[in-house]
Amino acid sequence: MSPETRSAGPVVALCGGIGGAKLALGLYRHLGPDRLTVVVNTGDDFEHLGLHVSPDLDTVLYTLSGRNDPDSGWGRAGETWNFMAALEELGGETWFRLGDQDLALHVERTRRLRAGEPLSRITASIAERFGLKARILPMSEDPLRTIVQTPDGPLPFQHYFVREGCEPVVTGIEFDGAADARAQPEVVRALADPSLEAVVICPSNPYLSVDPILAVPGLRSALAACPAPVVAVSPLVGGRAVKGPTAKIMGELGIAATAQSICAHYQGLLDGFVLDVEDAETAGSIGLPTLTAQTVMRTLEDKQRLAQAVLEFARDLAAGAKQKRANS
Amino acid sequence: MSPETRSAGPVVALCGGIGGAKLALGLYRHLGPDRLTVVVNTGDDFEHLGLHVSPDLDTVLYTLSGRNDPDSGWGRAGETWNFMAALEELGGETWFRLGDQDLALHVERTRRLRAGEPLSRITASIAERFGLKARILPMSEDPLRTIVQTPDGPLPFQHYFVREGCEPVVTGIEFDGAADARAQPEVVRALADPSLEAVVICPSNPYLSVDPILAVPGLRSALAACPAPVVAVSPLVGGRAVKGPTAKIMGELGIAATAQSICAHYQGLLDGFVLDVEDAETAGSIGLPTLTAQTVMRTLEDKQRLAQAVLEFARDLAAGAKQKRANS
Repeated sequence: MSPETRSAGPVVALCGGIGGAKLALGLYRHLGPDRLTVVVNTGDDFEHLGLHVSPDLDTVLYTLSGRNDPDSGWGRAGETWNFMAALEELGGETWFRLGDQDLALHVERTRRLRAGEPLSRITASIAERFGLKARILPMSEDPLRTIVQTPDGPLPFQHYFVREGCEPVVTGIEFDGAADARAQPEVVRALADPSLEAVVICPSNPYLSVDPILAVPGLRSALAACPAPVVAVSPLVGGRAVKGPTAKIMGELGIAATAQSICAHYQGLLDGFVLDVEDAETAGSIGLPTLTAQTVMRTLEDKQRLAQAVLEFARDLAAGAKQKRANS
Repeated sequence: MSPETRSAGPVVALCGGIGGAKLALGLYRHLGPDRLTVVVNTGDDFEHLGLHVSPDLDTVLYTLSGRNDPDSGWGRAGETWNFMAALEELGGETWFRLGDQDLALHVERTRRLRAGEPLSRITASIAERFGLKARILPMSEDPLRTIVQTPDGPLPFQHYFVREGCEPVVTGIEFDGAADARAQPEVVRALADPSLEAVVICPSNPYLSVDPILAVPGLRSALAACPAPVVAVSPLVGGRAVKGPTAKIMGELGIAATAQSICAHYQGLLDGFVLDVEDAETAGSIGLPTLTAQTVMRTLEDKQRLAQAVLEFARDLAAGAKQKRANS
């Protein structure tokens, strides 16, 4: 590792669930304690069985603390399903699977939310309990809910994603409650921090996982005004999503499933873009500084290596900008 | 079995948790489908971790359907505790242990209660799911909460019973909300049914488990006016409770821990009283017709044998009353 990668500035990552959390883990392991802030999508949150479930926050908490199921990517390792079996016996709703250990998080968070504690403080206390030294922030304390429009009408996100298995054609995506949602103040402060080293938009689904964050009033402009370089990592590899329905949705929305489309989607926000090696030949058409890297993260080493490369890329962008300012 | 025990009238049992549920099971197995109504104490119900827990209803549901843990008497057989372990990791409250399977009942019932469904209908649907052909009725749909007075102030029942392990001295018992609680209409109808064969007050704690039922306005008078013989089974054997704090509480309240005291406690309600064989010599001082029987129920056979004896006793009482009326 070069001495430059040891600079001690904070880093902000924006992410959704599984794919994004992989890079967040890489960043966390690479940066070490107390430098990473992860801003997490809560547009997927929903009330299920009377419990408040925050799928992306949970995936980030589990992944960063090493509690996640490495096979599925969501939920906890060594999970058991006796609650679900008993719920099925009672005729309860079983399409959204809640493991016995995972359930503790939903029950405890729901209890604390009902007692009036903000989601951010509950998340911070769970992170502390899990021994995490990264700051994990919901994008907002307020309900902003992702709604997927389909030919058969609107579907709440989890109904589309889990119950319907992403099968319905997506004709549009809306964010219920966006107008009234207030940005989590710590998120705004983190993005305005003059010592900030980089902002990384993780390879999450831009439409379903990152857009809800950007739909919170004030967060898009905070990102655009951010003093540090903003870098996005493409969730597509050779026109396919590593996981999830990104490419399928792009097709349904009439958008070419390419790295260029992803980059264009983030127009006005990015200082640099990270492409997979498989898409290296498209780098020239991106219209922004690019880094070509191995973005498929199978091992922890993959994650840390990509994190390091992305941060070095951001540092180069910052140095270039400084140079440009000095020359002008 | 004599032909008389085959009479087809309905039977009502009043009970609390573990001890009472044992006899309820004996009655259920002895009577066969569709004849037993169990009126269950809900004074122990409480909100825990944001979930509505009905400990006595659950014990009755699990016991009658063969799902109960035969060792502890409460909760489910083959239970796992992964939720509790994860909750402990999160710093949640763990003094009241909820098993992974058991939790499904609390989550599903809480959800349905919040959606406006009455507790009786939820209980009936769970009973049906469990394949039960007995009618299991909460004494009331309304919150009546047992509060234990101690020298250090009042304790909600489960705090006294589980969290404090029945250690505090009981100086009084109150039923919060009793004045406003309405008797479950089916309970009132069942007690007024002219074809009713018997009412059995199971060997539950009279002060903590049966009194809450009697504290519901209208239920004491419905019991007193009941056309069928009302028989109580003593929860004491030789001055000791088979399980639980009955004898300890009686001592603390200045009441001798004897079968006579139990019988006196139910004054005006009973037509007959069932004593344990160990207390046979006190039968003469009861002042009511008595049956002396083996009341300690270790096996299913014990339970069915006691149930049969109690019902035959009730039938004899009914025949005697008829004879008396005919002679007068």
